[in-house]
Amino acid sequence: MERTLIRDIREKDDTRISCSGWVHRIRKLGGITFLLLRDRSGILQTVWSEEPGLNLESVIQVRGRLKPSEKAPGGVELQVEDYKLLAAAAPNLPVAVNQDPTKLSIEALLDYRMLSLRNPKIRSIFSLQSEILRSFAEYLRSLDFTEIKSSKLIGSGSEGGTGLFEVDYFDRKVFLAQSPQLYKQAMVAAGMERVFEIGAAYRAEKHETPRHLNEYVSLDIEMGFIESDQELMDLEAEILNYIFEQVRRKNADILELWDSSLPDPEAMRKIPRISYDEARDIISTRLGRRIFELNPEGERELCQWAAENAGVEAVFVHSYPRKKRPFYTYPDGRHTMSFDLLFRGLEISSGSRRIHDHDLLVENIRRFGLDPEEMEDYLQVFRYGCPPHGGFAFGLERLTQKILGLSNIKEASLFPRDRKRVSP
Amino acid sequence: MERTLIRDIREKDDTRISCSGWVHRIRKLGGITFLLLRDRSGILQTVWSEEPGLNLESVIQVRGRLKPSEKAPGGVELQVEDYKLLAAAAPNLPVAVNQDPTKLSIEALLDYRMLSLRNPKIRSIFSLQSEILRSFAEYLRSLDFTEIKSSKLIGSGSEGGTGLFEVDYFDRKVFLAQSPQLYKQAMVAAGMERVFEIGAAYRAEKHETPRHLNEYVSLDIEMGFIESDQELMDLEAEILNYIFEQVRRKNADILELWDSSLPDPEAMRKIPRISYDEARDIISTRLGRRIFELNPEGERELCQWAAENAGVEAVFVHSYPRKKRPFYTYPDGRHTMSFDLLFRGLEISSGSRRIHDHDLLVENIRRFGLDPEEMEDYLQVFRYGCPPHGGFAFGLERLTQKILGLSNIKEASLFPRDRKRVSP
Repeated sequence: MERTLIRDIREKDDTRISCSGWVHRIRKLGGITFLLLRDRSGILQTVWSEEPGLNLESVIQVRGRLKPSEKAPGGVELQVEDYKLLAAAAPNLPVAVNQDPTKLSIEALLDYRMLSLRNPKIRSIFSLQSEILRSFAEYLRSLDFTEIKSSKLIGSGSEGGTGLFEVDYFDRKVFLAQSPQLYKQAMVAAGMERVFEIGAAYRAEKHETPRHLNEYVSLDIEMGFIESDQELMDLEAEILNYIFEQVRRKNADILELWDSSLPDPEAMRKIPRISYDEARDIISTRLGRRIFELNPEGERELCQWAAENAGVEAVFVHSYPRKKRPFYTYPDGRHTMSFDLLFRGLEISSGSRRIHDHDLLVENIRRFGLDPEEMEDYLQVFRYGCPPHGGFAFGLERLTQKILGLSNIKEASLFPRDRKRVSP
Repeated sequence: MERTLIRDIREKDDTRISCSGWVHRIRKLGGITFLLLRDRSGILQTVWSEEPGLNLESVIQVRGRLKPSEKAPGGVELQVEDYKLLAAAAPNLPVAVNQDPTKLSIEALLDYRMLSLRNPKIRSIFSLQSEILRSFAEYLRSLDFTEIKSSKLIGSGSEGGTGLFEVDYFDRKVFLAQSPQLYKQAMVAAGMERVFEIGAAYRAEKHETPRHLNEYVSLDIEMGFIESDQELMDLEAEILNYIFEQVRRKNADILELWDSSLPDPEAMRKIPRISYDEARDIISTRLGRRIFELNPEGERELCQWAAENAGVEAVFVHSYPRKKRPFYTYPDGRHTMSFDLLFRGLEISSGSRRIHDHDLLVENIRRFGLDPEEMEDYLQVFRYGCPPHGGFAFGLERLTQKILGLSNIKEASLFPRDRKRVSP
């Protein structure tokens, strides 16, 4: 008999079906056993006249007849006729799978990751993340962007970065890339003009905060023949709006489970764009004291300001000072054509127009105290004709975190890596 | 004036348009200069009454009027009225961009990667690769697979593998993952049931061959509630068939450029499935001597056999001996429920049903001389109920190589990594 997925159960009366899944919960009432069966699509109440003696999380295949039931999820239950044990689970789960996961500490969630991911609410985070990946790529492809895959092993750490992980590569050292910056620029210059990449990025930074990971998934975009960084902000807001629309359409149940909603298209068109200097003024005014950096408190305050004044919890901050942005950022007097997007109190994206003129780039590399000779590969891109261009990147986990309102970014990574955690 | 992409030029007479791109080729005839302009979508002949003095590969914006021209590509040329230099290229390109790239050695292709990628034929490899990525994900999503992103930093090298790259991770050593094997199995067991992942995989192997890379993109699939490895081969053939159909539809021009064609749906349904022992017999008979291993020569011979006997240059080889497959492979007597897919003489994929029973897995780990205690994270997946499952993986570069008939796999990687090459 063909397997029926729980979400596909339509009939309620007397139909014989076969379902497979995990033993989610067991309750005995008189001589009857109620067993909730969980598959990837939902939960079904099954009714047993004999106690089957199964441990929670065992995997079974059950056959029986559907009966209407007012108290069961979906208004239907399965009267079990026979079953097959596909995999027995050991007794005494170290963490409960069928409880509200928000009661678990972040340590318990991660130490017992193989089990905590079985919780349907935890698992739903990653179903939604899969939809972010899909809709991000789909939207960019509709605009004629090409997906690229660049190397994560880079020969030199000279891209201006500290915080690189070192790799033993045969007889030499290489580094794990912090971003595909060089490569996405190279592919614009190579004539693809519009590229995106979804790939791992690494930061060997020691911070232990609810918003940092040492390994994350970067959603990178780079685009040629632009005239200003305003076009990049336009594109970024459009991409996010598309992701939000798709998530609302495909994952309404998950948003409801996490009690979250997302800005609508009208709100997304109203995201304020303010300069770094304006941002500092607004935060200083609101906090009643002069601030000099956009710290986490300031970022939260600024999103609050945007919510009150523009009706959307997001704000673009542009025109960062030169010394606050990487050497490849296009200068604009003492400032730069650069921007961050803050959403619900957190920077979820960073971008800029890039320097495309070879000589200006060499000058800026020197200004940053770096050595142009060590960046020969990078400079070759610009020596032979590179169009004006720019780009930005989202952090997949930060975006997921802010969409669902997760308190720690590690909850948005299947197997997060931090300074102490390298397993499972 | 809005930019017109070259492929969107419809009118031929007197329309004024603006185009942007790279100076692909310059030819002077009498007092007239013919300049081929290249953008991401095509090549346009532009005609200049005054010699503009531009180096090849410079980036320009030109405005002018379209005129019909029998000799020009697309039957149209642009009479230039004015232009703007967006980025000047240095003279004397170290490798030509506008020549047939098959004349370049693989070393020249890779040493001057930033320039060789500008060649439209080279660039087309990666446009097609982008379509492989898209269609692979699209097909799996249509079957209710969820896309996952797992960590590439693993805490221990105990997954049975030699050939791991070591990473300095704060105060300890970790390794670059050879595959997401553990994680995709974990996500099946966690209730997603059907997952796929597109991510980097690393092999610290010293071989220098036209079919190996030390870093490649792995297209991984894992699926729960299967009953045999035959289902996995069914799925694999379907996925490949979908990719081929989409590539034929979207990239017909690229297939033509590389003089390649792909098996049609009827051929894809006829891929022979033979056991490892049968494969050795067929090869031995054809070569006229007894062979004991499926070496590259044997793989080519076997695909030739399939082409002659089934009309498709592909063959599934299954039932490998236990000692030839990893410890997690489901045993079947002295053999295993495992398979490789050979296509055009090369193994492009490897898969198997996996052991889902905890005790059998522990036994097999010991049989392979490994220590179950060092695999505690992995074993937890099976201790608490894991359904029967299996999966497989494609190498993106091998698939690209075989679709286009590239002689070296490095041509199918934007920035390939081998023992000596870590840049650009």
